[in-house]
Amino acid sequence: MADTTPGGEPLALICGGGSLPGAVAEAVVRRGRRPVMFGLKGWADAKVIEQYAHHWIAIGQAGRFFRLAQAEGCREVLFIGAVLRPRITQLRLDWQTIRVMPHLARAFRGGDDTLLAGVASIAESGGVRVVGLDEVAPEVFVPAGALGRHQPSDRDRADIARALKVIAALGPFDVGQAAVVANNNVLAVEAAEGTDNMLGRIADLRRQGRVTSPVGTGVLVKAPKPSQDRRFDLPSIGPRTVENAARAGLAGVAVTAGSTIIAEAAEVSAAADRAKIFVVGVPEDTAR
Amino acid sequence: MADTTPGGEPLALICGGGSLPGAVAEAVVRRGRRPVMFGLKGWADAKVIEQYAHHWIAIGQAGRFFRLAQAEGCREVLFIGAVLRPRITQLRLDWQTIRVMPHLARAFRGGDDTLLAGVASIAESGGVRVVGLDEVAPEVFVPAGALGRHQPSDRDRADIARALKVIAALGPFDVGQAAVVANNNVLAVEAAEGTDNMLGRIADLRRQGRVTSPVGTGVLVKAPKPSQDRRFDLPSIGPRTVENAARAGLAGVAVTAGSTIIAEAAEVSAAADRAKIFVVGVPEDTAR
Repeated sequence: MADTTPGGEPLALICGGGSLPGAVAEAVVRRGRRPVMFGLKGWADAKVIEQYAHHWIAIGQAGRFFRLAQAEGCREVLFIGAVLRPRITQLRLDWQTIRVMPHLARAFRGGDDTLLAGVASIAESGGVRVVGLDEVAPEVFVPAGALGRHQPSDRDRADIARALKVIAALGPFDVGQAAVVANNNVLAVEAAEGTDNMLGRIADLRRQGRVTSPVGTGVLVKAPKPSQDRRFDLPSIGPRTVENAARAGLAGVAVTAGSTIIAEAAEVSAAADRAKIFVVGVPEDTAR
Repeated sequence: MADTTPGGEPLALICGGGSLPGAVAEAVVRRGRRPVMFGLKGWADAKVIEQYAHHWIAIGQAGRFFRLAQAEGCREVLFIGAVLRPRITQLRLDWQTIRVMPHLARAFRGGDDTLLAGVASIAESGGVRVVGLDEVAPEVFVPAGALGRHQPSDRDRADIARALKVIAALGPFDVGQAAVVANNNVLAVEAAEGTDNMLGRIADLRRQGRVTSPVGTGVLVKAPKPSQDRRFDLPSIGPRTVENAARAGLAGVAVTAGSTIIAEAAEVSAAADRAKIFVVGVPEDTAR
């Protein structure tokens, strides 16, 4: 492995699945810092992780992480990539983690947000500051405006506003960051299934004749939950999101600008143009 | 067809799919009224409809309905059985319906509630009063308490309260009447897909290891939307709901007592006992 990364202040990246960790590491390098990848076994993609200085850890190995991070000189850590809530039996607990287990057990009984707050407190117990993506790689966020050639219509903008209100209403319940609204009808609300599953459901309902709005209407909207700890879990989109939205017969995809992560922005824009749908970054307070 | 029904005040029943129209017609007969079934073509089950005096109508044939209802002497009409939002191309419009189309078109752009309010106003335009199930067959509602041998635990009761809050929060958006909560985590929120699809999703997520709460935890909760017009669209459960909840690995099913319709109550109770899960009617204001 040719390590071509700069010698600046090292940054630990705890990496879940997908291509996003690679995009973030690139941005970190461009800003003159040295990424140290900690791939989560069973989640992270070796092809992405092994491009940089890296270690493999299991979820729950806080002690191992802290020893390795200290040896690498990392005083800050960034969490990247959605890690699905693990089963207890998938956890490989080490002693440092077990010391904070009472806290973690409480966290597991809550939703994502309390789980993640538990993770943050574990990190702090090891003397490593948890940083947010906005601090180290703000260019990974969707900007305001259309990403490709297509723009939402007024009808689409009304659907976007309604979907943002649905997501906001569910905020207190620590659930979904996404909803699909078509012609003012809420077709789907995301909970544990994830965005791709939700879009697959819309495609199925259309095939069954159970979505009456015609192909080319409806919007997938993603936004962070109001209460969300943005150091951990922000909504994200990639080319697959756009392709699945097109397969679901939607008019486009809207996400909150500045708080939704985009993996492979150029490919997202190209995928939107190919599918003739819009992808747009909207202000978080869009509503009417 | 042997018509063994009493000669009392006739009642028009506009019937969607499933066995519920039959259960309601039985209750109407027990109360001494004469049911006249209007089966919706493409939705209603002939085996159910043809047990009683009956006619077949298409969605949108308001004029035909009024002529037939008048000939049968029906001054009241009951709508039974969820009719999925029809595609415009499935509608067989007649002139009386077309006269009220501007109203209906507005209704189609809203959610279910506005669509149904449009239907009510069409019925009123024909001089037929729309009655609710609570007026003519209150015995089709789930009573308070457990239907079978099994009871919810305290943990289940907390999940039930949370799910009721989720459903209430979505009230303004005219969406789902159901949610699944397990160990305080909102696993699924129902929108256009229907309850059986939602439960199938939970079963899939469990197989994929994406539901961490063990088999035997989690509750399906169904409740009417706060704004719902109860003359049309109330939540309902039947034996299949219980079987699907068991397949999804849930601890049980909770529905609002007095406002959730139960088809085949004895079979629901037997299915719950066979699957070793609870089915319980809870007060609508259950929360803590």
